[in-house]
Amino acid sequence: MMRSFVEVAAESHFPLQNLPYGVFSTADEQRARCAVRIGDFVLDLAAVEEAGLLATRCFNQPALNAFMAAGREVWTATRQRLQWLLDAETPDLRDYSALLARALLPVDTVTMHLPAQVGDYTDFYSSRHHAENVGRMFRGAANALPPNWLHLPLAYHGRASSLVVSGTPVRRPCGQTRLGNAKAPLFGPSRALDFELELGFFVGPGNELGEPIPVSQAYRHIFGFALINDWSARDIQRWEYQPLGPFLGKNFATTVSPWVVTLDALEPFLCDGPAQDPPPLPYLSSKNHWTYDIHLEAQIQSAAMGVPATISRSSFRHLYWNVCQQLAHHTVNGCNMRPGDLLASGTISGPAPDSYGSLLELAWNGTQPLDLPDGTQRTFLEDGDTVILTGWCQGDSYRVGFGEARGTVLPTSDVNR
Amino acid sequence: MMRSFVEVAAESHFPLQNLPYGVFSTADEQRARCAVRIGDFVLDLAAVEEAGLLATRCFNQPALNAFMAAGREVWTATRQRLQWLLDAETPDLRDYSALLARALLPVDTVTMHLPAQVGDYTDFYSSRHHAENVGRMFRGAANALPPNWLHLPLAYHGRASSLVVSGTPVRRPCGQTRLGNAKAPLFGPSRALDFELELGFFVGPGNELGEPIPVSQAYRHIFGFALINDWSARDIQRWEYQPLGPFLGKNFATTVSPWVVTLDALEPFLCDGPAQDPPPLPYLSSKNHWTYDIHLEAQIQSAAMGVPATISRSSFRHLYWNVCQQLAHHTVNGCNMRPGDLLASGTISGPAPDSYGSLLELAWNGTQPLDLPDGTQRTFLEDGDTVILTGWCQGDSYRVGFGEARGTVLPTSDVNR
Repeated sequence: MMRSFVEVAAESHFPLQNLPYGVFSTADEQRARCAVRIGDFVLDLAAVEEAGLLATRCFNQPALNAFMAAGREVWTATRQRLQWLLDAETPDLRDYSALLARALLPVDTVTMHLPAQVGDYTDFYSSRHHAENVGRMFRGAANALPPNWLHLPLAYHGRASSLVVSGTPVRRPCGQTRLGNAKAPLFGPSRALDFELELGFFVGPGNELGEPIPVSQAYRHIFGFALINDWSARDIQRWEYQPLGPFLGKNFATTVSPWVVTLDALEPFLCDGPAQDPPPLPYLSSKNHWTYDIHLEAQIQSAAMGVPATISRSSFRHLYWNVCQQLAHHTVNGCNMRPGDLLASGTISGPAPDSYGSLLELAWNGTQPLDLPDGTQRTFLEDGDTVILTGWCQGDSYRVGFGEARGTVLPTSDVNR
Repeated sequence: MMRSFVEVAAESHFPLQNLPYGVFSTADEQRARCAVRIGDFVLDLAAVEEAGLLATRCFNQPALNAFMAAGREVWTATRQRLQWLLDAETPDLRDYSALLARALLPVDTVTMHLPAQVGDYTDFYSSRHHAENVGRMFRGAANALPPNWLHLPLAYHGRASSLVVSGTPVRRPCGQTRLGNAKAPLFGPSRALDFELELGFFVGPGNELGEPIPVSQAYRHIFGFALINDWSARDIQRWEYQPLGPFLGKNFATTVSPWVVTLDALEPFLCDGPAQDPPPLPYLSSKNHWTYDIHLEAQIQSAAMGVPATISRSSFRHLYWNVCQQLAHHTVNGCNMRPGDLLASGTISGPAPDSYGSLLELAWNGTQPLDLPDGTQRTFLEDGDTVILTGWCQGDSYRVGFGEARGTVLPTSDVNR
């Protein structure tokens, strides 16, 4: 069993088996640079690189894009090197006290930033349970799943500018909504603010315009995963989304967790995906299922609650379409991917009602309010509510985890009142 | 009448009254930098800046983003300064032969690039004629206009990575399509490749997340306009677009003209927009109509044709929603805009059949093929076809024009055959 000279608690998300990447700054040194996480510490990779302990030259930057562009061989070699450097038996870093003093920093002393500069952000709709739940609510049981859903991984383009790192507060959006089938819409703060429990992956090298990534090669272009909260204003979304899809109901904020867990770290947790019937077209046919057994939770904490309450327990394995199918589909028309692009899964709902990944589903469109420990109920989010997404893979006496994606709802901006 | 020491032909799009901005490089100096266009010449603004003739410090960059971020006062002052420097009566630049020799370059000796690094690209749907035409074809006359259309400027997020500058060839995309109401989709090259005649504007300073731009202030955040061809694969779009909107049917390429015409240059061509009934909600209510009388044309040239044929004559004035309403709507939920973001109009169709802005409408969904001068017909684009969009404002013996957005259709990539 490998063990680091950095102490790692048994329940930590960040043992030597994980080593996720992120971007941080400190009060003393506000220039953001790349790091790897171990236990409750961040290791400044710009400093380790400068000290000559790494073969790369891409971590002294305020984003992981250059490392993402370097490709799978570099990712795997760097991970192996870092596991060796952080191993309890390896003296090179362990005994290099001058370097450790400036490069190994308690995580509660640093500020985390978005892991990458995201050129384009895409959100899929790959959970069948979620799509069927939403379809039943809005189009009835007979038309729950759109006719194209089982043939292709549906997706839409999201907004890259409003991606924010975990911890950033989220302002309740204003917009047009329509009550029932009223003739005219109203304007005001959303009354149906929701979260969506998702995972997203960052793209590696990517492809040139006009040159699709075959499904068999897609894993070479997937750097790693982070938690995503795709905040959604359901009332704004409902009025605007036809025929062009979600827009202002989604693009006011999307929260991203700061640590990117690599495919190499997730490999022990590969599992079979659901059977796909009808069989996908050849360009979407993947031998390896590229699905992972990642336990996911959504928690909510109102201003009156001392600790968060878990309101959903789901798993990444419930997704119908896998990440290689998503990437192959997205590029099959020649659409180009750039390093750092973010592709999210869409809400990850499981089959059971307590595994649904949004309040819309958990409270079934407002008809089954959720009881919170502070004695209040929720159909949608209230001002002051904090939503915390978390997730991990359970290994044999260790976890490979994602930390959390957290955000607190602020009241609407004065300018709109 | 102002006149430049640089000769400008009477029918030129680029007299002293225009002075659009762009980004170029040369064979000798491949570092891209900013320029202004005058007649058949580009003036290297990095060189002019370095020579001390401008107050700015933002043109020695491969994109106009820094200048766009500088704001309306800087834009107007820089334009006035450039008009003065290029005036026939001003000796400062006219007689500075060493500078002119390296900074004033014939346009046919330079390579043009995208004018900005676009963080996010949004496409609106603001032509009522276009929306009604498409609605009649796909949803019938009774449901032509979606119920939300007259209340808000509908839009969707496009793909920033596949924005290409005029002249870049466009590969015919492959994808899933469904013939009629067949049970299963097919995969192959699109058989309904189309263009869309649009204009788009680049965002200036922009706004912080959570702080909307009021409609009365929106003009301060609009830098200028370029021609946009939003290439569309109608058969792919039709199968995929519900419920999440256009995706692979659009994101394989979007052509942008290289010269950005400023609001100051367009000001003499301000005109009234169409009456809006029902009246828009207060946050969309704009005193100034912010509509411009810009003549627009779409041309097509097959491989067999010696010269292009004009197949559509439209005008920007036909748009129902104006640019300030678009920007106010896009940010009303707090969505943040960054300098260089691109917001396009959607297809600009006029009321008459020969003013429709797409082949879908011009050939009425394949039922009324267009005759080309080479004796062939078109319902959609063929491999080898070149589409040229152009547009200009007609002044009193001068034009303020946009040049062109041009692209030639290449056959599908081998990897997909």
